[in-house]
Amino acid sequence: MEQFATVMATPKTSLLSTIPSDKARWNVLAAEELDHFNMDWMGKYRGKSSCVIKPKSAEELSAIMRICYENNIAIVPQGGNTGLVGGSVPVHDEVVVNLSSMNKIRSFDTMAGTLVCDAGCILEVLDDYVANEGYMMPLDLGAKGSCHIGGNVAANAGGLRFLRYGSLHGSVLGLEVVLPNGDIITGLQTLRKDNTGLDLKQLFIGSEGTLGIITGVSIATPPRPKSVKLAMFGLDSYEAVQQTFRTVRKYCGEILSAFEFVDADTFNVVMNSKVQSHKNPFTEPHRMYVLVETSGSNKEHDDEKMQLLLEELLESGLISDGVLAQDETQIRALWAIRENIPESLGHLGKVYKYDVSLPIEKMYDLVDAVKLQCQKHRILGVSPGEDLVLAVGGYGHIGDGNLHINVAAKGYLAEVENALEPFIYEFVASVRGSISAEHGLGLMKADKIGYSKDLVSIDCMKRIKRVFDPKGLLNPYKYLPSRN
Amino acid sequence: MEQFATVMATPKTSLLSTIPSDKARWNVLAAEELDHFNMDWMGKYRGKSSCVIKPKSAEELSAIMRICYENNIAIVPQGGNTGLVGGSVPVHDEVVVNLSSMNKIRSFDTMAGTLVCDAGCILEVLDDYVANEGYMMPLDLGAKGSCHIGGNVAANAGGLRFLRYGSLHGSVLGLEVVLPNGDIITGLQTLRKDNTGLDLKQLFIGSEGTLGIITGVSIATPPRPKSVKLAMFGLDSYEAVQQTFRTVRKYCGEILSAFEFVDADTFNVVMNSKVQSHKNPFTEPHRMYVLVETSGSNKEHDDEKMQLLLEELLESGLISDGVLAQDETQIRALWAIRENIPESLGHLGKVYKYDVSLPIEKMYDLVDAVKLQCQKHRILGVSPGEDLVLAVGGYGHIGDGNLHINVAAKGYLAEVENALEPFIYEFVASVRGSISAEHGLGLMKADKIGYSKDLVSIDCMKRIKRVFDPKGLLNPYKYLPSRN
Repeated sequence: MEQFATVMATPKTSLLSTIPSDKARWNVLAAEELDHFNMDWMGKYRGKSSCVIKPKSAEELSAIMRICYENNIAIVPQGGNTGLVGGSVPVHDEVVVNLSSMNKIRSFDTMAGTLVCDAGCILEVLDDYVANEGYMMPLDLGAKGSCHIGGNVAANAGGLRFLRYGSLHGSVLGLEVVLPNGDIITGLQTLRKDNTGLDLKQLFIGSEGTLGIITGVSIATPPRPKSVKLAMFGLDSYEAVQQTFRTVRKYCGEILSAFEFVDADTFNVVMNSKVQSHKNPFTEPHRMYVLVETSGSNKEHDDEKMQLLLEELLESGLISDGVLAQDETQIRALWAIRENIPESLGHLGKVYKYDVSLPIEKMYDLVDAVKLQCQKHRILGVSPGEDLVLAVGGYGHIGDGNLHINVAAKGYLAEVENALEPFIYEFVASVRGSISAEHGLGLMKADKIGYSKDLVSIDCMKRIKRVFDPKGLLNPYKYLPSRN
Repeated sequence: MEQFATVMATPKTSLLSTIPSDKARWNVLAAEELDHFNMDWMGKYRGKSSCVIKPKSAEELSAIMRICYENNIAIVPQGGNTGLVGGSVPVHDEVVVNLSSMNKIRSFDTMAGTLVCDAGCILEVLDDYVANEGYMMPLDLGAKGSCHIGGNVAANAGGLRFLRYGSLHGSVLGLEVVLPNGDIITGLQTLRKDNTGLDLKQLFIGSEGTLGIITGVSIATPPRPKSVKLAMFGLDSYEAVQQTFRTVRKYCGEILSAFEFVDADTFNVVMNSKVQSHKNPFTEPHRMYVLVETSGSNKEHDDEKMQLLLEELLESGLISDGVLAQDETQIRALWAIRENIPESLGHLGKVYKYDVSLPIEKMYDLVDAVKLQCQKHRILGVSPGEDLVLAVGGYGHIGDGNLHINVAAKGYLAEVENALEPFIYEFVASVRGSISAEHGLGLMKADKIGYSKDLVSIDCMKRIKRVFDPKGLLNPYKYLPSRN
């Protein structure tokens, strides 16, 4: 049975009944095992699929897709199911195609640094693999221990080192994709440059599983830095954060690999969290915190750059306090503060997550505006016991103009949602920002695209969707092109 | 008349006769002025257009496109007309839409480094502009003094610093595009991250004017380096070039901004050229030459990195000789050797230009194979006076796996073309390379896409073409999707 996909389904699922008898040897697992695939990790979105398929190859998936296509069966592709917008779980009874059984590294070119692998490989596993050859994955995010590279590509994940290594639109070299009708695009080129015709792979990057299912990824990996340094600063204002960013860019230049900010409310939630204990690196509280990471090829030079930066920052009075990690353990401890934000907030209550792009100078205005809005709606600042909102936290990637604003509440409640939406979307649209910087549209923002895109573009998207998925079977109910 | 587009046309052109009377104030220029727009700069491709339009805004172009759409008039978009594959000149009597009158900078954000400008801005003009604010354009190529940014984007230009700053798919942030039916995509976002729906702009990057006409570009510009260093080495073999690349990456790391190689035949053509005089930096001849450029933020550190590299290269015996530019004048002189290759070859004869991606270790095999093929066909190596082929030169971007192979011949002759094609394309396909790394398909390779792309992909491209250009009016006769 090894050579076939694992099918988890209740016996009566429509797909199973249509699978030809020679495919009936696929494993059929019990209904209670399906829960894990029906619900997202935040517990916010839940579907009712009775059939989960785990294909082992593009060819096998092709056969499955063809059957679904012929029988008008809707499909939801699923990677590590770490998404934040309800994009990777079914809404009703769509078949879930989970890629976790496609987890092999296909090839790695040690001269060129190009990796070809299955879509179901876990990001951290890949990073460990290429580390052995002196390379690193060009993206990093909190969910790296469980997210799949195929999901990263389908969602156009950004993450912590976007500032240095750029977008997946630049680093993905090729994709293998199974289309809704079962056709396979065998596009796993490893070439850094290829101008022969329309660059189709770009369409799948960020398409959130609406055009086809990515089964293989070819990606350029940058050389792994020999020296990594990490500092954390305490600052008095968001204005100081911006000025610090300017100074850091000047002194660190090409070795800057991350510049993250965390506001006091978010920082305090992590410090007080019972999920994981963190040592507060600062003796005094600050209004803003910043993490600055450098990655370079010459330790001595990087030390000196960081030293010059610290001197300038302290002399100018831009920062109130700062710590410099002295070893790998301290680096991990400081990064953990940033990376454990989602979990710590999640432990506090149910979390409304917004992920927006804004002009850098206006980023923090939104956090202040949201707090005010919650107070106006009397869900914050009434009394600690009664408040429906438990915390409003702002953090994110300054260099990318990418703010994460998280509102922890007593539950997913209409009063809270009505206060936040469309308020946040309208604010973002008013400054020509994006209502989804990196999380995607998913189910959460499927009908909100108009806040960030013009009508001509939206119409083009719908027509492209029909080119690949004329029956609208892939990830229906989500992402605008499927819904209209 | 200033507010209207300039129309150059013979009075009887079909377009002019369809322009409503209120548009008749457009300038009509004489037929002899059209030559310049009908022929590419190599003198290889020539069309017979009797109408050249130079719109001044997207709205004006929209009105023109609508008229053409309603009257089934074919259009060829044209930027600086510096293309190498016949993509920017008409084949028959298509209307030429030349973007040179749209050459304004719209905005520049000095904090974020994001530039928004008209498509007709010249690359070098933009680079000078952002230089004043401490930034640089993320691409550079020999034609920078005349190529347009819109043409760069439409052709997905690569160039000399791709190695460091990556692909336009990563650095273009937004596009304004006029579609064949006159609709305008107003997508000039300046956000570094925006995951709201399909990333349509990616389709236009490298679409060679087959889907719409780019009228505005929003692009991320990296900080301008404070220190630039350039070295040129003489080496004994292509194997040594590869090993040198490995060593350079190790010592220069994040400051490496270009690694170019030029073979002896190409180098000698430049040295002996009468177009421009060059001082040979080497006293002895070598089989291969390499240019290594670093760009960094700290001169002292960069000097030391280059010093350590030179010591290692000389000690290991990888290079036979080397020069390090001592000032800006010497930097320009060394770069001129590389940048004047196309012109020097062009002065020697008519040049067949191939621009291919190959696995790095196989790059130079193709040059050797082409020389052998020319000898077999008795167009090279028979006798200096009789040979139809005057020189076979190989050069290019090692780090990107991008080889330029140029064959200078006594003319554009069937004997030469038949020896080179499909020989070169078949060689490239046999090692899974790309028959167009950065030049595009244009007219030259419109029907050659099958050497680098699978049938499913080609079919998808055709269907996407129909989404944007159902009547097939944009750049017909070229680029596969239009032709089939």
